[in-house]
Amino acid sequence: MKKRIAVLPGDGIGKEVAKGAVEILQAVGERYNHQFEFSYGMIGGHAIDEKGKPLPEETIQLCKESDAILLGAVGGPKWDQVNPDIRPERGLLQIRKELNLYANLRPTTYFESLAKSSPLKDEVIQGVDLLMVRELTGGLYFGQPSERMDANGESAVVDTLFYKKAEMKRVIEKAFILADKRRKKVTSIDKANVLESSRMWRETAEEVAKDYPHVYLEHMLVDNAAMQMVTNPKQFDVVVTENMFGDILSDEASVLTGSLGMLPSASLSENGPYLFEPIHGSAPDIAGKNVANPLAMILSAAMMLRESFGLETEANEVERAVKQVLDAGFRTSDIAEFGQQVTSTTEMIAEVKAML
Amino acid sequence: MKKRIAVLPGDGIGKEVAKGAVEILQAVGERYNHQFEFSYGMIGGHAIDEKGKPLPEETIQLCKESDAILLGAVGGPKWDQVNPDIRPERGLLQIRKELNLYANLRPTTYFESLAKSSPLKDEVIQGVDLLMVRELTGGLYFGQPSERMDANGESAVVDTLFYKKAEMKRVIEKAFILADKRRKKVTSIDKANVLESSRMWRETAEEVAKDYPHVYLEHMLVDNAAMQMVTNPKQFDVVVTENMFGDILSDEASVLTGSLGMLPSASLSENGPYLFEPIHGSAPDIAGKNVANPLAMILSAAMMLRESFGLETEANEVERAVKQVLDAGFRTSDIAEFGQQVTSTTEMIAEVKAML
Ligand SMILES: CC(C)[C@H](C(=O)O)[C@@H](O)C(=O)O
Ligand SMILES: CC(C)[C@H](C(=O)O)[C@@H](O)C(=O)O
Repeated sequence: MKKRIAVLPGDGIGKEVAKGAVEILQAVGERYNHQFEFSYGMIGGHAIDEKGKPLPEETIQLCKESDAILLGAVGGPKWDQVNPDIRPERGLLQIRKELNLYANLRPTTYFESLAKSSPLKDEVIQGVDLLMVRELTGGLYFGQPSERMDANGESAVVDTLFYKKAEMKRVIEKAFILADKRRKKVTSIDKANVLESSRMWRETAEEVAKDYPHVYLEHMLVDNAAMQMVTNPKQFDVVVTENMFGDILSDEASVLTGSLGMLPSASLSENGPYLFEPIHGSAPDIAGKNVANPLAMILSAAMMLRESFGLETEANEVERAVKQVLDAGFRTSDIAEFGQQVTSTTEMIAEVKAML
Repeated sequence: MKKRIAVLPGDGIGKEVAKGAVEILQAVGERYNHQFEFSYGMIGGHAIDEKGKPLPEETIQLCKESDAILLGAVGGPKWDQVNPDIRPERGLLQIRKELNLYANLRPTTYFESLAKSSPLKDEVIQGVDLLMVRELTGGLYFGQPSERMDANGESAVVDTLFYKKAEMKRVIEKAFILADKRRKKVTSIDKANVLESSRMWRETAEEVAKDYPHVYLEHMLVDNAAMQMVTNPKQFDVVVTENMFGDILSDEASVLTGSLGMLPSASLSENGPYLFEPIHGSAPDIAGKNVANPLAMILSAAMMLRESFGLETEANEVERAVKQVLDAGFRTSDIAEFGQQVTSTTEMIAEVKAML
């Protein structure tokens, strides 16, 4: 198989972890006889410095010509003060919109060897295996107007939560398709007792459910979901929700099992290319020190093998290698316990490669 | 002191727990020589059944003529299917708006004797003492338009996040005033990297902070806050945020210490009356069985003594009595551990009374 992969390392630890994913993919390519061709593009603060904007045209072009995209992380204090239109995060929002990446998938999994770093009791998180599906190109993030205004002489502001029904439908369908291959349960999250958009969301979920008679659909209010996520995360299989609720709940979900530095994500469009990135940020405080945990990025590459290229065996191989490295006791500083020996970024990458 | 208290028991367990609060207040009144006069009003499903709407005019009138309001809980499956405009929750939203209850205060406290029922590890929650201040009368909850629409022939929907700067200012000020009497830290939560309303929120917080030089202000993005709440809740003193973020985060906060059935809330306006209610719902499944936990409602009455009537000693007395009852091992079923003897609602009320 021959595939073009766009690599956008971004800022902070993005570069270090992206390097790890590329190395692992090269090793997988050699082993299984695939040709992975890597091309590099700029995004985020780095792109602001070099090109004056967080997502230069050539990066968009590169992505559109590629079969899949690997993104490291963007942002850092250096660019915090700049005009919101050219802040690093704007690059993220723009790439989602440009490539129509409407479905953000974030698995939260339980790694037995990491349970000690979880804030939750082991009996609460043991065996947690949930997949958050977040709508990524609509809602409050992109609705217009989003501006200051004058309300009868008083200073005021408005943001707009706008959705087309078709935008709700496609992401909810994606959740059902994914649930059908898993434990066959979809929890759809909304605020139907307050928002009209949530009432349309709930109706749409009911309509989609008719086409998936084997998948069980349940509705949950977002405030209750924020509680249930902490008190009983095991109840969830696939969770689907709109953009802003998804932003909040997926971050909440990501810390449950104590493996934030381990969690990958995929952002899917209708016809590709898809984008894969670790859910952690650019961690400017530890950037360049060879201490970042590259496993979330490597697991993102595994998701890419599966979701973009259909390479299930290869994806499983990478995931197995990561698990073995953890079971063997290797730990970057973020997941090390007190007194445990700490492994560097480059050593961690080498260990995963050795396990392949 | 002579005070008129409006009691709105509402639905489900609302009636049982409201009765508890009234009994305790009567005992406090006798002991300290206050005249508390209770008048009863309808709200929620109960009001829909009797009056055709969740918040009848006579209830609004009663509240406006009272010095403070005690609310039980509203809602239940019986009214889930009815038209959104006459659902029980609408009564809640309407009373907030009618009485201008713009600041919702929810303390989350650690009860040592209940830590076992928390999903979090003890070292994470030990000593948690946070006060959530949620804006309660603006934002997505009340913004217009909130309706279905046609977008170039496609079915679509819009909700509106609208705030006046003055609405932000008054609730943020309230947070600073409260923090000044506590550990002097305000965490203001927004999504300033995406929403224009959040950027105005952040500016307003900075402006208000200038008047409280002894209070430390920090900003946190809502997604990060949803993580930090689980991983390190002890860092928070007073947390202030807009309506929808507050709905989600305050429910998340409420389950941290394992004492959801114990948590009171207060909703404040500029000139009163204020409203006090437990944060738990109407729990229709256990209603009428004399098993509900009345302590959140009793602690709400304590907040009323303090916030509405300035009766600090009396409020402390009630809180002390509740703590002693717990320390003595009395447990309603929601907070009992396996094998522990279970106390009924009426017994629990009697025990608190006996400790006064
Ligand atoms: C950086 C920010 C704009 C972004 C979001 O809110 O979507 C981030 O929090 C995420 O979840 O990817
Ligand atoms: C019942 C509902 C409308 C209400 C809200 O969202 O405000 C409730 O969740 C609350 O927090 O008091």
